[in-house]
Amino acid sequence: MDTLTNLDNFIDRLASSDPTPGGGSAAAMVGASGAALVAMVARLTVGRKRYADVEPQIQEILQHAETLRARLTALVHEDAEAYGQVSAAYRLPKATAEEQTVRAAAIQAGMQAASLTPLETAQACAQVIALAEQIVTHGNVNARTDGGVGALLAHAGLQAAVWNVEINLSSIDDAQFVATTHAATVHALAAGQAGLDRVRLAVNGDQ
Amino acid sequence: MDTLTNLDNFIDRLASSDPTPGGGSAAAMVGASGAALVAMVARLTVGRKRYADVEPQIQEILQHAETLRARLTALVHEDAEAYGQVSAAYRLPKATAEEQTVRAAAIQAGMQAASLTPLETAQACAQVIALAEQIVTHGNVNARTDGGVGALLAHAGLQAAVWNVEINLSSIDDAQFVATTHAATVHALAAGQAGLDRVRLAVNGDQ
Repeated sequence: MDTLTNLDNFIDRLASSDPTPGGGSAAAMVGASGAALVAMVARLTVGRKRYADVEPQIQEILQHAETLRARLTALVHEDAEAYGQVSAAYRLPKATAEEQTVRAAAIQAGMQAASLTPLETAQACAQVIALAEQIVTHGNVNARTDGGVGALLAHAGLQAAVWNVEINLSSIDDAQFVATTHAATVHALAAGQAGLDRVRLAVNGDQ
Repeated sequence: MDTLTNLDNFIDRLASSDPTPGGGSAAAMVGASGAALVAMVARLTVGRKRYADVEPQIQEILQHAETLRARLTALVHEDAEAYGQVSAAYRLPKATAEEQTVRAAAIQAGMQAASLTPLETAQACAQVIALAEQIVTHGNVNARTDGGVGALLAHAGLQAAVWNVEINLSSIDDAQFVATTHAATVHALAAGQAGLDRVRLAVNGDQ
């Protein structure tokens, strides 16, 4: 049980007065935890006689969940880095008109990157929810609640990531970029909500 | 940024085929992360001129958030231990009628404990949401999204914990215990949902 305590380090960093890691990193972390729970249920399903018929599908879910977990774990760091890029842009000199132009462009570029990072987190979380739906339907019924919790965590990560996208979009001038990125968040949210609703039905139907 | 990687150890444990840590521990972990984000926003508020008027209130929020974070971090472990107690009860001998009676009583006692642990997680998560509501209303507006994410994470922890309570209640014979515990989950869920709705309004009103 020792390794559980290592979690405290990340949460300590979250609680500190340093703005990073913040909500964007937390969104990716909770999505990665959701993917991990989907992977756990898949591992509690493979190799069991009762589930032999769905073995190939469960193996696919497991691989996909592990790919998403790795990507979301990387996004924990990437979100903090994207925030750092924006902060650096704000610290650029702004004494002359030319400096102001350079600084404004750097801020816009930083904000676009800082929008796309949580957008990727949101999309990955929506995929975790889709996998959770498969695992609560076809996986080990004794671990169904764990798969459901995986969907709940990924859904929190999805919503949190979208809030981070939207707050950054509010500082971006490029209307085309804003429209395209906003549309992508709407799509991810709708897919994630529909998936979570189906997971809820599957989990609560057992109680 | 090194310490962020320590998170991987917990998430690795979550993903493993070992049933613990599972959904109950993940619920407490995500609640602790929500409390940490509330604490971060409080720390980004105290000592700033603009927020001098609310300083005593913010200090109180900070202390309460840190207390809840410590409790939820302990519940990550306690949930895994409670699960272990139930598993141990199921492994008791059941050859004679007397052994069967002893085993059944041990299972019931283990299940009750394994219901009360996630109930405490659920109640602590509901308190984190109430603190998040205060911090997004009175705290540093530049970190409002982070406070909102804190509420989202705590709400996921709340729902996940309640699922864990309910799945255990379904194996408990004591009708009075089941009724009382179920009523407590309904109360925590209602308070948490109402708080999250108000946080959503506060966060999205800024965009």
